Amino acid sequence: MKILISHAMIIPMKQEGEFFYGDIGIEGSHIVFVGKKPASFIPDTTLDATGMLAMPSLINAHSHLAMQYMRNYKDHAPNLQSWLAEIFPIEDKLTQADVLASSRLGIIELIQSGITLFNDMYFFAEETARAVNEGGIRANLGLTLFGDLASSKLKIKEREKLTDAAIAASKGRINLDIAPHAIYTCTKETYQYGHDWAKANQRNMHTHLSETKKEVDDCLSEHGMTPLHYLESIGALKDIPSLLAHCVHLTTSEIKLLKSMDASVVHNPSSNCKLASGIAPIGIFLKNGINVAIGCDGSSSNNNQNLFEEMHIASLLSSVNTGHLCNLRPFDMLKMATINGAKALGLDNKIGTLEAGKEADILLLDLNKAHLTPLNDPFSALVYAAQASDVDTLFCQGKMVMQNRKVLGMDQQEIQREVNSRWKAIQNR
Amino acid sequence: MKILISHAMIIPMKQEGEFFYGDIGIEGSHIVFVGKKPASFIPDTTLDATGMLAMPSLINAHSHLAMQYMRNYKDHAPNLQSWLAEIFPIEDKLTQADVLASSRLGIIELIQSGITLFNDMYFFAEETARAVNEGGIRANLGLTLFGDLASSKLKIKEREKLTDAAIAASKGRINLDIAPHAIYTCTKETYQYGHDWAKANQRNMHTHLSETKKEVDDCLSEHGMTPLHYLESIGALKDIPSLLAHCVHLTTSEIKLLKSMDASVVHNPSSNCKLASGIAPIGIFLKNGINVAIGCDGSSSNNNQNLFEEMHIASLLSSVNTGHLCNLRPFDMLKMATINGAKALGLDNKIGTLEAGKEADILLLDLNKAHLTPLNDPFSALVYAAQASDVDTLFCQGKMVMQNRKVLGMDQQEIQREVNSRWKAIQNR
Repeated sequence: MKILISHAMIIPMKQEGEFFYGDIGIEGSHIVFVGKKPASFIPDTTLDATGMLAMPSLINAHSHLAMQYMRNYKDHAPNLQSWLAEIFPIEDKLTQADVLASSRLGIIELIQSGITLFNDMYFFAEETARAVNEGGIRANLGLTLFGDLASSKLKIKEREKLTDAAIAASKGRINLDIAPHAIYTCTKETYQYGHDWAKANQRNMHTHLSETKKEVDDCLSEHGMTPLHYLESIGALKDIPSLLAHCVHLTTSEIKLLKSMDASVVHNPSSNCKLASGIAPIGIFLKNGINVAIGCDGSSSNNNQNLFEEMHIASLLSSVNTGHLCNLRPFDMLKMATINGAKALGLDNKIGTLEAGKEADILLLDLNKAHLTPLNDPFSALVYAAQASDVDTLFCQGKMVMQNRKVLGMDQQEIQREVNSRWKAIQNR
Repeated sequence: MKILISHAMIIPMKQEGEFFYGDIGIEGSHIVFVGKKPASFIPDTTLDATGMLAMPSLINAHSHLAMQYMRNYKDHAPNLQSWLAEIFPIEDKLTQADVLASSRLGIIELIQSGITLFNDMYFFAEETARAVNEGGIRANLGLTLFGDLASSKLKIKEREKLTDAAIAASKGRINLDIAPHAIYTCTKETYQYGHDWAKANQRNMHTHLSETKKEVDDCLSEHGMTPLHYLESIGALKDIPSLLAHCVHLTTSEIKLLKSMDASVVHNPSSNCKLASGIAPIGIFLKNGINVAIGCDGSSSNNNQNLFEEMHIASLLSSVNTGHLCNLRPFDMLKMATINGAKALGLDNKIGTLEAGKEADILLLDLNKAHLTPLNDPFSALVYAAQASDVDTLFCQGKMVMQNRKVLGMDQQEIQREVNSRWKAIQNR
């Protein structure tokens, strides 16, 4: 199958300031050209993208997708502890079928926000994997470790096999990673087991790190060192690639250590603000050459899955936090949501930019909007003015997964109905 | 004309937590009931609002609407001064016809974001007034004072008469106010003239105040006091209602003074972040009983006119700035964007809530969205999860101005085309 996307304004995300008008050719799962259509390329289908902006589709590098039920749920609690006291008992009640329904809803929401890859940490990963295949998008699913070694081992041993079929069906779109939850919920042995699993399987470790000041203070009391130093001291991150979500409260010495590791930071600006955790110093990370990706976190602390909002908020926070006008440039934000996310997941050879040879994960955004007129700088427009609802069409691995804002192959109305009905039942359990 | 809006989820914005399912009756320009349709009400038209949320339409309490041209324009300058050096020369080139086209575009954008009233400060107010009447919405237009008394007087004397016809045609939807720009652009005599105009005409004064630390420092050097004390010392705000945009850097003594005045603060969170001005302590203002409204500022420093974003960002900033989880409640944000805006403009007896006897400014938001499922708390949903693009239908003074996202009575495509073409010409002037 050969698809021609014609007459688009193209942002390949290869270098700052680069955009041009042209065509994109897709053959099977791959991009075969970006720019001018060669005469030899005879498309089976042509999509006229006049008035559209084409860019790599977005990567949500930190999520708990199945938390959709708890969206807008008791979320103006007086403090974090009292809010968590409402959330945890609900999570204990969730069944596999609940997680499947919620994952389906989450995938519709991701697609409608221009996202084709998410890096997840939740239970019942095999159900989320099933929903990922239905939506035709990508996921890195972290087998979640929580608590002591025995219970963590048991949990993932069960799940590991269950996801095999889904992974095989995904044609490389689903990868399994390991995800010890956090230093305040996992023992040293659990982290070490996670490390060994990642090393043996050559996969990523995904974990929360230094999200709150309390986490840092408690770690100092308990271990006499800050969280990243603690993880290093137990060998948890040694010679494996890792994605460290939040990193709001890293010390200078931790930033230096981070630089020496094969690690990426995942910034979650909405969640960090809403939960009053703080503002991660992403400008400093970037200046130190640390790879920074961006995520939405769970819908219970955000309360949606919208990377256009995250890029926008990250940019505003960076300026107001540092006192420097536009401290980070719109291109930095767009990189965080595309190629940096791909790098963090070890997929930058396959996706994250628009170029011949990469897989065709492409977002088409409708520029024919009052709030995008005049367009002027398209990079600024994407970060400051555009809305997720401006995304019109989305491709993942060469296949259209949304057209004219309709998610293909998933019944949105039926899924919404099921989630609402399950949520009622969950609350009555 | 009698219109029945039936089966909506209704948030009247009269008290926190209040929402119910029911009907709204409109007769002419007014709401005649909210809740249960009386048998005596026989509608000419019925709008089935099943699956929609009805609330008061939004009020953008600080804007420079005709700055649309400079949206996304050279806005990642290294600092405020170098950015302004790009913007000011462009503004000098704008003609009346340019301002008309830009205002039309702005009004389409406002309507598509659920806004039916904006409080503006710009030149050629008569052109903006004309566009307001075309869109059928409301505006408080500030006759803008800039510089010394002689030039300020001249400017507004010309404009004052020009707006008369538009005001007459607006059926009370357009009001003329006075808007000395700021203490760093207007002389003492200009402010005093503005004060006398407001007092004589019983109108509001709209001005920028304490937006940046530099403004405060300069005022201290020049006048030996901070900006609000300076305005008080010259009698600029005495016995007139005022709207003070920004108020990022007020001292404790200024907050005390503000409490004693007939003044409202207008919070502009996106603009204050983007320009690295700081975060206004709106929680402290509200705790002190000061009325706080919310605005989008100009599209060149935002870069759109979207109060759903502003409410969201204001809420996140309030939590992260204070370190208190959900420091301000979603209801506080929704009030800022509705009844508090109405109060600030002296219109709270006419609009700002949904109740019998008020004019019918009503927003219908489509709840049938993945990102609003499950809905759970509708107040949280509106502030954290909803998008401006979820607004489906909008009424102003009993008349429908948008239906199914189509702005009625304005040719969006033609207006966008004209703005793009004028913008090219402006840059070549």
